[in-house]
Amino acid sequence: MRSLNWVDGGLELVDQTRLPQQRETLRVTDTRTLVAAIKRLSVRGAPALGVAGAYGVAIAAQNHNLGSDADSFEREVTELACARPTAVNLARMVHRVADVARRADNPAAAALAEAHRVEGEELAASVAMGRAGADLADQILGDRKLKVMTICNTGGLAAVERGTALAVVQELHERGRLDNVLALETRPLLQGARLTIFELAEMGAPHQLIVDSAGPFLLAQKAADLVVVGADRIAANGDTANKIGTYSLALGAARSGVPFVVVAPESTIDTDTATGDSIEIEDRGSSEVVSIRGQQVAPEATSALNPAFDVTPVDLITALVTDHRVVQFSAGDSI
Amino acid sequence: MRSLNWVDGGLELVDQTRLPQQRETLRVTDTRTLVAAIKRLSVRGAPALGVAGAYGVAIAAQNHNLGSDADSFEREVTELACARPTAVNLARMVHRVADVARRADNPAAAALAEAHRVEGEELAASVAMGRAGADLADQILGDRKLKVMTICNTGGLAAVERGTALAVVQELHERGRLDNVLALETRPLLQGARLTIFELAEMGAPHQLIVDSAGPFLLAQKAADLVVVGADRIAANGDTANKIGTYSLALGAARSGVPFVVVAPESTIDTDTATGDSIEIEDRGSSEVVSIRGQQVAPEATSALNPAFDVTPVDLITALVTDHRVVQFSAGDSI
Repeated sequence: MRSLNWVDGGLELVDQTRLPQQRETLRVTDTRTLVAAIKRLSVRGAPALGVAGAYGVAIAAQNHNLGSDADSFEREVTELACARPTAVNLARMVHRVADVARRADNPAAAALAEAHRVEGEELAASVAMGRAGADLADQILGDRKLKVMTICNTGGLAAVERGTALAVVQELHERGRLDNVLALETRPLLQGARLTIFELAEMGAPHQLIVDSAGPFLLAQKAADLVVVGADRIAANGDTANKIGTYSLALGAARSGVPFVVVAPESTIDTDTATGDSIEIEDRGSSEVVSIRGQQVAPEATSALNPAFDVTPVDLITALVTDHRVVQFSAGDSI
Repeated sequence: MRSLNWVDGGLELVDQTRLPQQRETLRVTDTRTLVAAIKRLSVRGAPALGVAGAYGVAIAAQNHNLGSDADSFEREVTELACARPTAVNLARMVHRVADVARRADNPAAAALAEAHRVEGEELAASVAMGRAGADLADQILGDRKLKVMTICNTGGLAAVERGTALAVVQELHERGRLDNVLALETRPLLQGARLTIFELAEMGAPHQLIVDSAGPFLLAQKAADLVVVGADRIAANGDTANKIGTYSLALGAARSGVPFVVVAPESTIDTDTATGDSIEIEDRGSSEVVSIRGQQVAPEATSALNPAFDVTPVDLITALVTDHRVVQFSAGDSI
């Protein structure tokens, strides 16, 4: 599953707000359209945002002369970098490509070439994580068909192609080693039900949807051999912040002796953060809990606590797979 | 919150399928209407079903002469007993009242008197559980304001009034000891979001809604001092079957040292079942996971695993509060 493509001088995005009911492609040839798409979550996931932002700068460099119209270029670069303030990867890639453009004789060509490099690195990282994760599954669980459980959406839609945790699932599928995938629906925004199920169906992998709270019990019932999850941020000691529900799944995996593997690019590791205790938890407000896909479920005026992610302590994590290495916490390894 | 009332020769039910958006009362004076209401979940919860079934037999005895029209009476008794096959309490109370009616000189009067007794016992049980649970909280946590977490709906709507686990919450609130209640929304059918939040608002108790998967993490964040849950069935060793998500919450409570208390009538204990391993788990099919309140969220044709409840091993349970006693598992007590 590919989330975006550079085609004929423009960026084409799968509009993720319409999935899975409608599969629509959005063609972007100006940064205003891209900023709006990022804001309404038509494109989402740290790696995908980084690549989209990189191409956004290439578009800005196409549309404005950096000599005579540098102000417009710089304003659009800033708008792109700030389109999703919590997405560190977006700002990082936007600034990387903008720096290249500013120093080049032909800014438009140089920015596009750099954006292509960003995309290429992203694709290579996904392939590397998929392989390393599947190899690790071999090593831990032996050469047999596996049932895998996962949360949220960590596939091609969140990256460019293949993704992080779902890249491991895809690799296992391609190796003929996948028996079943149990995907948690991932309340409140249902990225599992909407996006992961869509990607699994696209790749022809056997799968079933479950409500989030069924995950730990189904692990106790031996319905999965392996749990793979992504990460938003990993502290120096290995404590991992990820989508709300990840911690609960890790508790279930630990209780039932099921390997729990975090799959994320090396850039997710934040060595300035010593442990998970110092990771601040964003609360996204009541509305996405009180209503579901626009439909009110709780009484009017109900207030909700809505932590967007949780922190899984490293003692519950079997291993971390990045694009560069495998850290087996359960075997005493550290980052 | 009262789920039902006998008023002027008929049974009045709060129509729970309409809550929380509409508060409608359904007046029942024939068993066909009651059977339909039970089947579409207008009335639900083991204790409430038992009382509704008891009054249903009283209605059947009013409407049919047990001498000249015994066949009609018996047919309606069977229909009532079978309206929800998994609800053991419904069949038990229907047969109890029918037996009294069959032996009485005035069947209609005797059935109604027995149904009133069933209701009275149910009300007394809820009051007893609420008090015992609040006393236990005192004993474990000391005389201070408490933050309580709970799952599903275990309040007056599931019983006649006050309920089981939510009776403890109400008692704490009446004693001025309630700081906050965190209610899990309880996917797939959202009884927490729809019914528990409604009851908490009605009783004027401070509360917030959370998604199910946030429960364990919020316990780690010290957002609750106590977890109270109901039970569908309790094995002889204390293993407890309850709404899916209960096990996950118990894992979170154990990890964070938060007392985890099961509140259920003595009749929930099934001494014929040695441990939770022999409790069969009902799967309710894909549709309630794949769509939410009639709205499709996952791609068409998605299949789901949908275990209706889970089993929490007794080692994760601090105590069991029934209408007759408190069993402190964590202190070495057994059933």
